[in-house]
Amino acid sequence: MLHTRHVQENPSLYLFLPIFYTVWSDAVLTPSEIKAIQDIINSQGWLSESDKEFLYSQLNPALPPSADQLKSWLEEIRKVGLSPDKKEGLAEIGIRLASLHTNGEAKENLQRAAKSLSQIEETLGVISREAAFAFLPVSRNTPTETQSTQYTFNVDKLARILDGPNEAINKKVKIIISDPEFKRIETDNLSEYREKVLQWAKHLAHQGFGAMAYPKAYGGQADMASYFSVMETLSYHDLSLVIKFGVQFGLFGMSVYFLGTEKHHKKYLKDIGTLELPGCFAMTETGHGSNVRGIETTATYDHVKKSFVINTPNEKARKEFIGNAGVHGQMGTVFAKVIVNGQDYGVGAFLVSLRDKSGKTLPGVTIKDCGRKMGLNGVDNGVIYFDNITIPKENMLDRYASVNDDGKFESPISSDNKRFFTMLGTLVGGRIGIPRSGLSAAKTGLTIAIRYGDQRRQFGPEGGAEVPILNYRTHQRRLMPLLANAYAFHFSLQYLTNRFLSRTEEDMQEIEALAAGLKSLSTWNTTKTLQECRECCGGKGYLSENRIDDLKNDTEIYTTFEGDNTVLLQLVAKSRLTEFKQEFSNMNVFGILNYVASQAKTSISEKNPFAVRKTDDEHLLDPEFQINAFEYRERTILTSAAKRLKSYIDDGMDSFEAFNQCQDHLVKVGFAHIERILLEKFIEQVKGTTDSGCKTILKKLCDLFALSQIEKNKGWYLENGYMEGVKTKAIRKLVDRLCSEVRQEAVPLTEAFNIPASCLAPII
Amino acid sequence: MLHTRHVQENPSLYLFLPIFYTVWSDAVLTPSEIKAIQDIINSQGWLSESDKEFLYSQLNPALPPSADQLKSWLEEIRKVGLSPDKKEGLAEIGIRLASLHTNGEAKENLQRAAKSLSQIEETLGVISREAAFAFLPVSRNTPTETQSTQYTFNVDKLARILDGPNEAINKKVKIIISDPEFKRIETDNLSEYREKVLQWAKHLAHQGFGAMAYPKAYGGQADMASYFSVMETLSYHDLSLVIKFGVQFGLFGMSVYFLGTEKHHKKYLKDIGTLELPGCFAMTETGHGSNVRGIETTATYDHVKKSFVINTPNEKARKEFIGNAGVHGQMGTVFAKVIVNGQDYGVGAFLVSLRDKSGKTLPGVTIKDCGRKMGLNGVDNGVIYFDNITIPKENMLDRYASVNDDGKFESPISSDNKRFFTMLGTLVGGRIGIPRSGLSAAKTGLTIAIRYGDQRRQFGPEGGAEVPILNYRTHQRRLMPLLANAYAFHFSLQYLTNRFLSRTEEDMQEIEALAAGLKSLSTWNTTKTLQECRECCGGKGYLSENRIDDLKNDTEIYTTFEGDNTVLLQLVAKSRLTEFKQEFSNMNVFGILNYVASQAKTSISEKNPFAVRKTDDEHLLDPEFQINAFEYRERTILTSAAKRLKSYIDDGMDSFEAFNQCQDHLVKVGFAHIERILLEKFIEQVKGTTDSGCKTILKKLCDLFALSQIEKNKGWYLENGYMEGVKTKAIRKLVDRLCSEVRQEAVPLTEAFNIPASCLAPII
Repeated sequence: MLHTRHVQENPSLYLFLPIFYTVWSDAVLTPSEIKAIQDIINSQGWLSESDKEFLYSQLNPALPPSADQLKSWLEEIRKVGLSPDKKEGLAEIGIRLASLHTNGEAKENLQRAAKSLSQIEETLGVISREAAFAFLPVSRNTPTETQSTQYTFNVDKLARILDGPNEAINKKVKIIISDPEFKRIETDNLSEYREKVLQWAKHLAHQGFGAMAYPKAYGGQADMASYFSVMETLSYHDLSLVIKFGVQFGLFGMSVYFLGTEKHHKKYLKDIGTLELPGCFAMTETGHGSNVRGIETTATYDHVKKSFVINTPNEKARKEFIGNAGVHGQMGTVFAKVIVNGQDYGVGAFLVSLRDKSGKTLPGVTIKDCGRKMGLNGVDNGVIYFDNITIPKENMLDRYASVNDDGKFESPISSDNKRFFTMLGTLVGGRIGIPRSGLSAAKTGLTIAIRYGDQRRQFGPEGGAEVPILNYRTHQRRLMPLLANAYAFHFSLQYLTNRFLSRTEEDMQEIEALAAGLKSLSTWNTTKTLQECRECCGGKGYLSENRIDDLKNDTEIYTTFEGDNTVLLQLVAKSRLTEFKQEFSNMNVFGILNYVASQAKTSISEKNPFAVRKTDDEHLLDPEFQINAFEYRERTILTSAAKRLKSYIDDGMDSFEAFNQCQDHLVKVGFAHIERILLEKFIEQVKGTTDSGCKTILKKLCDLFALSQIEKNKGWYLENGYMEGVKTKAIRKLVDRLCSEVRQEAVPLTEAFNIPASCLAPII
Repeated sequence: MLHTRHVQENPSLYLFLPIFYTVWSDAVLTPSEIKAIQDIINSQGWLSESDKEFLYSQLNPALPPSADQLKSWLEEIRKVGLSPDKKEGLAEIGIRLASLHTNGEAKENLQRAAKSLSQIEETLGVISREAAFAFLPVSRNTPTETQSTQYTFNVDKLARILDGPNEAINKKVKIIISDPEFKRIETDNLSEYREKVLQWAKHLAHQGFGAMAYPKAYGGQADMASYFSVMETLSYHDLSLVIKFGVQFGLFGMSVYFLGTEKHHKKYLKDIGTLELPGCFAMTETGHGSNVRGIETTATYDHVKKSFVINTPNEKARKEFIGNAGVHGQMGTVFAKVIVNGQDYGVGAFLVSLRDKSGKTLPGVTIKDCGRKMGLNGVDNGVIYFDNITIPKENMLDRYASVNDDGKFESPISSDNKRFFTMLGTLVGGRIGIPRSGLSAAKTGLTIAIRYGDQRRQFGPEGGAEVPILNYRTHQRRLMPLLANAYAFHFSLQYLTNRFLSRTEEDMQEIEALAAGLKSLSTWNTTKTLQECRECCGGKGYLSENRIDDLKNDTEIYTTFEGDNTVLLQLVAKSRLTEFKQEFSNMNVFGILNYVASQAKTSISEKNPFAVRKTDDEHLLDPEFQINAFEYRERTILTSAAKRLKSYIDDGMDSFEAFNQCQDHLVKVGFAHIERILLEKFIEQVKGTTDSGCKTILKKLCDLFALSQIEKNKGWYLENGYMEGVKTKAIRKLVDRLCSEVRQEAVPLTEAFNIPASCLAPII
């Protein structure tokens, strides 16, 4: 178009150059819009017929400008001097462009043309202003471009808040796993990896970490708090090591400690703590995972020989997935049905030797290797069969059940079921260690993905510099709520740990439910977090060197072991129903009436037309509104589940059937309960934080946690009339804003996790 | 309690035995309930003080019954002859029990006692009837126990519907992958695995599968439809093979075919199809994945030598993740910025030799191995650097851009961007092959998990047999909607394939958007499906031998490659916005007024107080209601996104910024659009199915798909007043019911996928 006779004779035609450029470049002008442009040209009285024909010819698809011409058009357009602040449309730019080339009569034409330009603006409207951005040669300093990492709080102080009283032990473990001896290996050879992990575990035992929780008399330090911290901090390193460590010192050692009595402690605990005696925890059978109460391995008492015979009666009764059994385990805590005098007394625990010191399997014991797994391949899981092997009576772990000198079964707990659940209850520590380990993996994933997102640039405004991907809304929406979750779970898992450490017998039911629930939500959160982290790191997230690979695959099984999450959440719900019943049965008739009335009152005050539509920041960021919303949900779901169960059973439905009908509902009871605790503990943490920088950022994270949870459950809130659409929409916007605010401090927030550099990825 | 003096003297005391048993067993009686029982005992006038004291003593926590006593109590209780149909409470059972032991005066006592029993029932209520179930010795035939697999349709017929016209080729591929030569290997040695995969790919090439889509003149069969079917069916086997196959014959071969001209076809296509010439598709750079337009590799034209110089100017410009580059590739289609006469013409494609026949890297080319990845380890991904290597001008793939004899750049497309996107558009086939491959993996996972769930038994009514886990509501809720999804995606991917095979130039924008959208939703659905399948198989799902491991890790990257899903969905949204604008600009003022009026009318009729609360089956299962709901959502989200963008830009916001503000909204536009298409195609499939058994089950799956999607989006529907809570609750119940109905036919529905036995897992 440039340098043609037409344009030289009538420079006013420059007016159309920005439009033509847009038509031929890749903007989204549609054929009908091009038609509209033709109509506009046609209606310009000041154009000669020959001008018009020339202009039409510039829109002929069969005669496109050459690539070079198009480039020169852009160069020409940019001569007018554009700025992002002017917000001009194509027509306005065209006028300025034409003005550069015109004088005299042409100027008059232009004046006339300007009048009819309103038509172009009307037709093209937004498109016109949008397209004009393409002419800008430089970065435009939009908020999306300029967002960057800020430090508004003291990272060390926040790190210290996260460490709490465990700062010293955490530091010690970090030093050790950063030691060259602990360099992660890249082998894919199973046995090489397993030997390495065993070696690492021995180093840790040598440092006294293994026996940490055992009594001082047996080489330990009676420090359960530190034991959990070791598990948590080790989890930044290699998760196979964590599980190997947990199997040996936790599952195996703690079963001897909690289910056995002094004779067992004396004989075994020291060797377990030093890894002199590698052992297993042989509970799960092929046929019985979740329903362990149904295991079929038998321990039959022989009063003549004062011994038990341990036997695997069928293929489904073999012990499966047993960690440390594949290669290293020399002894196992074996769970079996206790048979005394032909009577079945339910599940008991026994110490059974599996291998001699040289690692040779003992007679009557058959062990198969579970082979390669999705993850945790540094752990040697195995399958164990017992062929009527005899063990001395003393090998029964007899804290809760024993056989007396007359050969009679004895127990302080009458019911086989109650005894079994009491035994399991003593092992609840595993349901604290695992979610804390999983949370460390999630934190590592977040650290990698967030730092990568802060550096990785992709796309940007046309002609401008590329923008860190963490500045994009979808990227923030994917990662920021998960960062808030990591903090939320951290504080609640600390709370759970403290409850466990200072437990009394009366607390146990509540602590068990809390552990079951937090284990479930926390490990699912880990799976979800690492999934998002992988996707947010794109192809880089798929390379093993960047670690998300292993973190994801190793923790994948966390949602299954130590209790399948779906099954555990039903336990939580049942425990809640029991407490609910208790609440009622503690009341007399007046009490119940009051309760119902107060519930109605709450509903009225919380669900009044004003509250359900209240959308101001002050209200939505008020912890009282937030916790009320969580509590209301918890209470309502629990009440409705109880009512539903009652009505089914009242109608004569089998209780097993009634529970299955409500199974999904019960799982939601579990969720709502744990979510409320997560928020409650987070709010308490914010309140208790004194450093103002830390307090501010924690409050922001807590708000993001609270509101993103409400947003996730908005269907429920709307369905139940607790909020109206106007409010859930306001919450969505506020979550958007919080995400972009937290993004600014996301990197320092990962720095506060204080993960050793050796545990992170080369991409960051 | 039994055999004590008290009970022998007053056998009416047997009345309390069921209650006492329940107290001491593991039922959920709370301390306050025990207190209530004490109160009841106290209020019984017919009991002597000594009787009362005896009864209190039976509730003393310090003096529990022995395990043997408790067992004998249960035996005693069962003597009354219990049946699940009687629905008796503890008190009623107690009366019948006492009656067995009483006569004369005692009978009278019992009569008197019976009157005050209402008190017990009142206090214990549901608990009492619930606890009584524990006494039942046998299975109770509840629906949960008795649900089992049914065959109500002809599996072969449904399989044939799924195969469509591809039955013959699918069958052929299945025969080949079931051949012993294709036995999957269990090595973890990278190079062994890669060699095996190459060997397999050669077998397939030898069978003519590689060249399938190429013209007959170059050894092919010009059969693109079959090529896609081969990809899909191969995906039941080893996914590394699928990707190796896709890189060689799809990405590399098709780039030569679609971006090159006859000279390239003649020279290379035959050797590519036979795998004589293994090649790569070198597009992605370390610095540019999603934003490929920004790649920095240069191809600088030298008119004197009639050649291009290919160069990697910096570390971020190296080609990364390139399949087939690590070891085997001898040539690559390399994307680079075309520089002619110092002018940058955007991205072009060039054939560059990488290795000689012996596999030695050529001078100027440096290749690094990407090493181990999360999955697809049978594919040798590599990093490539070019150090100013010279290639002849003829190696430019010159369908869309070339350099003429005068050394000038030439192209039928003026704009560099438009040219680039047109080139990409020709390669859209990858976005069809990948989701179809991923869907096969999802089907394999579902087949494994559903058959396992049908066999695996865990838990059951107290005293009854264990129940298949697939009978539990939560398990059904996890797997059945995903089974419906698999069918939904199958039909829509067939539709996409057909649209692609019969494409015209005008269709391309729509087909590209459809492919981008279906690729995104389908691959995310694969990730989600395999995640649930893993969890639903518990520990078994974690063992590599059961395949979910590899299926999951191999397909993990499907959400990233061939375009990151989040980025792709924004493309879909932008394409929808363009169509939306077009729809408007095609209308005159009256047209627009009519459109707005008709939209308002729809809203009024769809959102009338009756419709938003309508909950009957007939309505909810009506395809018209279902598709209306999906369309309403699609239209409303699109309109509101357009309005939001317009208002931001009208307010003077930078267009880049405006799009980022709405990014999440745009992603939802993509979701809503594709979800509508999924439902539409599913409904069409149901309508077009003639066999009545197949039609019935497909209708059920379609209903489950439609309603579970609405349930997923219920927050949106409620927020926008399209439904009220009463309706979304009814939908939840209906989804429950559909899940349990589909469960009955879930196994045959996986059989219709017709996956070779050799591709499944040992657990089933």
